[in-house]
Amino acid sequence: MVKEFKIPDATIERVALYLRPLEGLMERNIRVVSSEKLADMCNVNPAQVRKDLSFFGEFGVRGVGYEVNDLLREIKRILASDREWRLGIVGLDDMGMALVQHKDFQQRGYRFIAAFDSDSRKIGKSLPNGLVIQPLSMIKQAAKELRIEIGVITTDAVEAQRVADLFFEAGIMAVLNFSPVHLRKPECCLVENVDFTLNLDHLAYELNRIG
Amino acid sequence: MVKEFKIPDATIERVALYLRPLEGLMERNIRVVSSEKLADMCNVNPAQVRKDLSFFGEFGVRGVGYEVNDLLREIKRILASDREWRLGIVGLDDMGMALVQHKDFQQRGYRFIAAFDSDSRKIGKSLPNGLVIQPLSMIKQAAKELRIEIGVITTDAVEAQRVADLFFEAGIMAVLNFSPVHLRKPECCLVENVDFTLNLDHLAYELNRIG
Repeated sequence: MVKEFKIPDATIERVALYLRPLEGLMERNIRVVSSEKLADMCNVNPAQVRKDLSFFGEFGVRGVGYEVNDLLREIKRILASDREWRLGIVGLDDMGMALVQHKDFQQRGYRFIAAFDSDSRKIGKSLPNGLVIQPLSMIKQAAKELRIEIGVITTDAVEAQRVADLFFEAGIMAVLNFSPVHLRKPECCLVENVDFTLNLDHLAYELNRIG
Repeated sequence: MVKEFKIPDATIERVALYLRPLEGLMERNIRVVSSEKLADMCNVNPAQVRKDLSFFGEFGVRGVGYEVNDLLREIKRILASDREWRLGIVGLDDMGMALVQHKDFQQRGYRFIAAFDSDSRKIGKSLPNGLVIQPLSMIKQAAKELRIEIGVITTDAVEAQRVADLFFEAGIMAVLNFSPVHLRKPECCLVENVDFTLNLDHLAYELNRIG
């Protein structure tokens, strides 16, 4: 496929944010949306929406808005979310269980195809989606056979680096990390951290200001 | 307390990101950190670190670095994370259970003091932290008696707006929303959305570029 020029990370993050409202509009058969409306749905300003979308080509009709269907298709194509991605997860406590059952993941094409845990009591058990929990020693083989593309880590901080290293050694280039630790990684690999306490910190800061 | 001037949101978000590495340094008795080292630990650039921290007063000693202890204390004060915050949660499926047991929340002073669910089979059951799950009809009374400050929503999309409205009516000004829906809110209230699929979108985009 033709490689796109590099779009700024902040733009990519905001554009991903536009997907869900656009899907909502599609479901309600609304065909055109203004930058003002879309901005309002995403809590950003309209000028920002127009600037972000300008990276993706000419969709807007001045004074009218954007064709929802076209815009959605193009955003999905650019974000590569128009295809299925194959996920492996390590750590099947509550957080892991919540993730493998998360409807959004499936709807967006993120499919868990392998599950691992270091707890021997969990190994061999079946998840609601039919996956059987495997030991960590199976990561390398499973990664190859099942072509796992993204590794998800929900272990505690102590175990997370070891799991990340196993993923990287198995040729998995991207990791979504829910554990509260900064992961070392090879230059070529990608790590995204999820940390809910940052969201709480933000709320606390704002509450403190207005309080 | 003296009100701080308004610091940009992006700065606040990044500064919150610096907390965890600084706490890690404290635990290892490392007293001084350079902007380069801190930047590396947080995946931002050193100039950004220096600019962000300049909002918080004069901590840096040119050519030496920052006093970890002083910096940590001041960041916590500004973020208002040097105090305890009182959380109520609605939705005690896997995600809710993962959150109430999340060690990070407790360590950072975010304490769940009330739990609610609309599922009558869950009401009256005890959580590992000793909380008893209450019906949604109790939100208003509990919010007042227990002085809930932040509401956490882990319900499905259909129920989320109703729960948010209950929170707002009960005088809870801030909501952390894990449900996949854009919540309507009064002007004065705050909503932070957590959406893991955005992190996956970002990984997928980058994988697609390098792949």
